[in-house]
Amino acid sequence: MPVGLTEPKRLSPVNGAKLASVAAGIRYQGRDDLVLIELAEGSTVSAVFTQNKCCAAPVTVAKEHLSQSNVRALLINSGNANAVTGEQGMRDARESCRLVASELGLSSEQVLPFSTGVIGEPLNMSAMVDGIKAASKALTPDNWMSAAKGIMTTDTVAKGVSKTVELGGETITLTGISKGSGMICPNMATMLAYVVTDAEIDQAELDKLLQRGVRQSFNRITVDSDTSTNDALVLAATGGSKASKLASESDLEAFYNVLEEVLIHIATAIVRDGEGATKFVKVDVGAGLSEADCKTIAYDIAHSPLVKTALFASDPNWGRILMALGKSAVDSLDMDAVDIHINDLSLINKGQPAAGYTEELGKTVFEQAEITIRIDLNTGAEAYHVWTSDLSHDYVSINADYRS
Amino acid sequence: MPVGLTEPKRLSPVNGAKLASVAAGIRYQGRDDLVLIELAEGSTVSAVFTQNKCCAAPVTVAKEHLSQSNVRALLINSGNANAVTGEQGMRDARESCRLVASELGLSSEQVLPFSTGVIGEPLNMSAMVDGIKAASKALTPDNWMSAAKGIMTTDTVAKGVSKTVELGGETITLTGISKGSGMICPNMATMLAYVVTDAEIDQAELDKLLQRGVRQSFNRITVDSDTSTNDALVLAATGGSKASKLASESDLEAFYNVLEEVLIHIATAIVRDGEGATKFVKVDVGAGLSEADCKTIAYDIAHSPLVKTALFASDPNWGRILMALGKSAVDSLDMDAVDIHINDLSLINKGQPAAGYTEELGKTVFEQAEITIRIDLNTGAEAYHVWTSDLSHDYVSINADYRS
Repeated sequence: MPVGLTEPKRLSPVNGAKLASVAAGIRYQGRDDLVLIELAEGSTVSAVFTQNKCCAAPVTVAKEHLSQSNVRALLINSGNANAVTGEQGMRDARESCRLVASELGLSSEQVLPFSTGVIGEPLNMSAMVDGIKAASKALTPDNWMSAAKGIMTTDTVAKGVSKTVELGGETITLTGISKGSGMICPNMATMLAYVVTDAEIDQAELDKLLQRGVRQSFNRITVDSDTSTNDALVLAATGGSKASKLASESDLEAFYNVLEEVLIHIATAIVRDGEGATKFVKVDVGAGLSEADCKTIAYDIAHSPLVKTALFASDPNWGRILMALGKSAVDSLDMDAVDIHINDLSLINKGQPAAGYTEELGKTVFEQAEITIRIDLNTGAEAYHVWTSDLSHDYVSINADYRS
Repeated sequence: MPVGLTEPKRLSPVNGAKLASVAAGIRYQGRDDLVLIELAEGSTVSAVFTQNKCCAAPVTVAKEHLSQSNVRALLINSGNANAVTGEQGMRDARESCRLVASELGLSSEQVLPFSTGVIGEPLNMSAMVDGIKAASKALTPDNWMSAAKGIMTTDTVAKGVSKTVELGGETITLTGISKGSGMICPNMATMLAYVVTDAEIDQAELDKLLQRGVRQSFNRITVDSDTSTNDALVLAATGGSKASKLASESDLEAFYNVLEEVLIHIATAIVRDGEGATKFVKVDVGAGLSEADCKTIAYDIAHSPLVKTALFASDPNWGRILMALGKSAVDSLDMDAVDIHINDLSLINKGQPAAGYTEELGKTVFEQAEITIRIDLNTGAEAYHVWTSDLSHDYVSINADYRS
């Protein structure tokens, strides 16, 4: 059961983007597993990819194509990651792009391929051929919801959000979708996520906006500390709105603020739907000597199996939080200076149980589905936060009971 | 169920060491929870401790005492870690040493205190007082088995081993015991472990032997990546054998080889009895550019929840091993050069599934209780290995169903 997350009621079309989602039968039966997104001529596209050295064929091909041309189409399949598939995998990824290009009257380099699913199995190319043909004929601006569903794998709920921002009297729309729930600890990228806006934005500005946004969103989530072979996040600007090109500092800043909201929404949606998650947890480390110190500590706590099982148990076992804090390789850490709050409850004061803290009070807070673990290091003024989930029996079941 | 591990049939007495194990009622009822070890005058003692910055009161006191005097007694209680107990915890640790000293005619500084169990609760000092008195009267050389049981917490089996080495026609005995099964990822130390020998060894040599041995044993095990607040490993040499003082290179080397066997035995016993463990796994990374690279990769694989759940499932899901390998922050890693064997089965050859590999073959090997994941990076000649266990439903149960 995702934590505080339901399917979006509606996702807004974005002028300049058409989508199709079809059931190609790549692996799953009776559900969509192939999504095609066509972007209007003149669109700018920016993307970040997994830094896992074991990266999938489509990641390699997408990076290549992105550097070579003006991207006009995104092809996404679920059910098969096309990873560790050798030369055959590379040929399949390139051939998929060629098929899309031929249907849409583009060059192969204008198509970016994305895959998600099982590692190490060859892509079912006959299903891909039929799927691409069907999808090319079904492109409409209104297909965002079915696209959000078509890219799902172990996800239990479709993830997406739409927002608007008024600039110069004109409305700009942003719609973003994402998928993912396990193998989540993005490194400069994430699972699969796509944000499209009808703003007109130069390539260089778009790249900057995405780099800045990903640091505040996808690079701060972790379900299980494992980094996927296929992570990709794409931001496309079609220029299809009536607003003039975003160029001034103030317009870019206004746009960025809404972009960041969209990115955080679809990034944290992945954690809320984390494999087996029963808790949505923000680990917020502040008053530290450096952002790097705060980040190390935030991840050490978010990745600790003993903290995560205590969260699953709603057990206010603060000894485990202190243990995870203490094991951090952070020289500036002074255990006797540390304050910890769980939501509004003071748990640890200067390294010792806070006056007035009781197990009963702790239990009440730990039983909540959404928890913020706030740690003040009191060694400086820097901060970092990450979002994570707990470690439950269902996580083990999902990853041990069948091949995902 | 521990993997390939049963209670030792017998642990040999070591001349110069007397032990007692009593049921003091510190937390557990009806079982021993307080152990006292008395060492003969002239013994040398070396120890390493947790580097968790959230270290327990007894760790602080033991370090202090070790630097101040010739240690003559080790006091160990289970059931309560005396960690995050503030000033009271320090007073309790010192008072415990004073009580032992008064019973045995020593100074307080000659006693090292050790605690293991729940974090954040004050030590039951009236139980300690009675337990110390009872233990002081029950010291005999033959109590190693009951001591191994007395220091257990979530352990399901007592851990220990005895070995001998002949030097100059005389027999030297080493007996070691350890405890621990969760919160296991020692950093320069481990859970609680004690090795005593009747060899005569200078302090400086003893320190060197222990430092060298711990790098080959306790610093290579991980159950859940979490580092305890109370880890300690002690090596004591009583000089009670008839052998002359170990001084020559060759004698020290011969002794070290047996010491290393003892340390590896009691360290890996902790992994075999890891919380919820159904598999005992050696991750052996070789042919790397540096030992540091191999170590990073070995731990990234040993700590990956997705690799650990696949091991629990006996699922030859080699995509997850490649994923964990690929996420390593190791610049020299060349995925296309990597070979992987599981026991004797070739799984990955130059980054791709090996010729002749089948799921059926993989399944046969992954079903075994003891598995070696051998990774050849083929970028150099360095190597590193660690020992770990899998991630099972029982791990979640043990750490979520009750406060451990």
